[in-house]
Amino acid sequence: MSEKCVLVTGAAGFIGYPSLAALRGRGYEVIAIGTRERAESTEGVRWVVADLKDREAVSALVSTLRPSHLLHFAWYAEPGKFWNSAENFEWVKSSLNLLQSCAEFGCSRIVTAGTCAEYDWSHGRCVEGETPLAPGTIYGTCKSSLQAMQRALSAEAGISEAWGRVFHCYGPREHPARLVPTVINALLGDEPARCSHGEQVRNFLHVDDVADAFAALLDSEVTGPVNIASGRPVQLRDVILEIADQLGRRDLVRLGAVAAAPGDPPCLLADTDRLVEEVGWRPSRDLHVGLRETIEWWRMRRDQERSRGADIG
Amino acid sequence: MSEKCVLVTGAAGFIGYPSLAALRGRGYEVIAIGTRERAESTEGVRWVVADLKDREAVSALVSTLRPSHLLHFAWYAEPGKFWNSAENFEWVKSSLNLLQSCAEFGCSRIVTAGTCAEYDWSHGRCVEGETPLAPGTIYGTCKSSLQAMQRALSAEAGISEAWGRVFHCYGPREHPARLVPTVINALLGDEPARCSHGEQVRNFLHVDDVADAFAALLDSEVTGPVNIASGRPVQLRDVILEIADQLGRRDLVRLGAVAAAPGDPPCLLADTDRLVEEVGWRPSRDLHVGLRETIEWWRMRRDQERSRGADIG
Repeated sequence: MSEKCVLVTGAAGFIGYPSLAALRGRGYEVIAIGTRERAESTEGVRWVVADLKDREAVSALVSTLRPSHLLHFAWYAEPGKFWNSAENFEWVKSSLNLLQSCAEFGCSRIVTAGTCAEYDWSHGRCVEGETPLAPGTIYGTCKSSLQAMQRALSAEAGISEAWGRVFHCYGPREHPARLVPTVINALLGDEPARCSHGEQVRNFLHVDDVADAFAALLDSEVTGPVNIASGRPVQLRDVILEIADQLGRRDLVRLGAVAAAPGDPPCLLADTDRLVEEVGWRPSRDLHVGLRETIEWWRMRRDQERSRGADIG
Repeated sequence: MSEKCVLVTGAAGFIGYPSLAALRGRGYEVIAIGTRERAESTEGVRWVVADLKDREAVSALVSTLRPSHLLHFAWYAEPGKFWNSAENFEWVKSSLNLLQSCAEFGCSRIVTAGTCAEYDWSHGRCVEGETPLAPGTIYGTCKSSLQAMQRALSAEAGISEAWGRVFHCYGPREHPARLVPTVINALLGDEPARCSHGEQVRNFLHVDDVADAFAALLDSEVTGPVNIASGRPVQLRDVILEIADQLGRRDLVRLGAVAAAPGDPPCLLADTDRLVEEVGWRPSRDLHVGLRETIEWWRMRRDQERSRGADIG
């Protein structure tokens, strides 16, 4: 077994996939677990297709692979559905099985993806260990419950653990139903982008930076919850208008055309002192650059789809 | 299906068993789930032996029985071991399976046994929804996590739920390794009762009262966490000396002979306003009467064991 061998779950996912290169860059031997192998090959990464809901399979896998580290992203994430789906309970059970197997078979450090949805959103600015946890959804409740259990399990097993609370995230491969891809694809297709009022204040971080922050957190000795966020507040309207300006299509933006989601907080920001000062991590790109990359990715993908369509036609 | 048909888990257990009569007394049709059937028959109670860790079996059971209510006591409770055992995680998973099955098959109200170990013990007096939850054990962590998930699951399913946080409890059938049986059995056997300093302040409630309070809570419309406790502070030394006085054996009490458990809080009390005012419940016996009954039960049991020994011999 290598000194630094990490098992990554949800490795084909939005954050999991870019984490693989970030982990390779930090000298980890990487074993990627996914429900499918990604089409893009990842140099130096060993892919294992496994069903994390199968307890026996997970135990057999971990006992064979004996990873020194676990980076656990896998969860149910279907837009619109994940907030209050019963699938969240399944992922609590599956995650406990996975954590228990890792503790049993000699893993020394565990980092799991949490969420800003664990916090009491009435506080606006969320500080780890200070802002109360009062999740308003099954998703947030299950994540915060798992965090408490991960901490207790790790303390008893004598292993190190941290918990990265993801705030707002965008970038290539995001689910097309989410805000940034919806706006980009509307404008690329010469359609109006129908948005809410856009006054919500958020932190937005490019998914490659989110993934890199997780790799840095795993590679550190920092324990407990750590917010994974840019720490720079931005209004949704400014994100939307930045996309529009890059595409020269402000004329297609329709702010206020749809209602904001019920319970959507006016301001949801992360304190990033732990990430910056304890983990020693900073984002590598600003919103302007990050959105440019994201637009390019969607443009390329649309071109590929069109040429595939032409081949068939 | 009866209007009031309750499924009771852990029904052969310390609190579960006396809850059966209390539920019958309130007009419930009672289905008792245990890993074994209790030797004492319970009139009007239907016993089902089932393994709650078998998800398929639980789902089949609940879909067949279709209880209107669930009273969930089953958990791992081995004295000395339960605080930080991995079994607690198994019971989180099994409890989620059970709660999900009940929600799926038409149960309208769920009450689960929680614990004072969910609270931050530095606060001394614990008030539901006010005193922070900061469990220092895996047991407390798993119970408080399950409470949060039960609340979220019930809200989504549109069913009513409450959570009875049990404080200190004594009475017939308690595990012999716990404080009250240890003292009683030592003194009945003319042995010294070696105790800690005994200055700890606690609430003590007779197990039949605890069980009756759970039946009252189930039968009410009160939701969320409710402390199940006497609300009357007593020092452990006074409990010990009361037992000694009833047995006329103060001479055998050795206060300070053993160290108190590490982390044992000086004062751990329940605010009982919710139980008294919202559920409308009060204890039926004081400590003097409760300990008398408990001593009698142990005396009888010792006599039975002796005569059984004589039969064999």
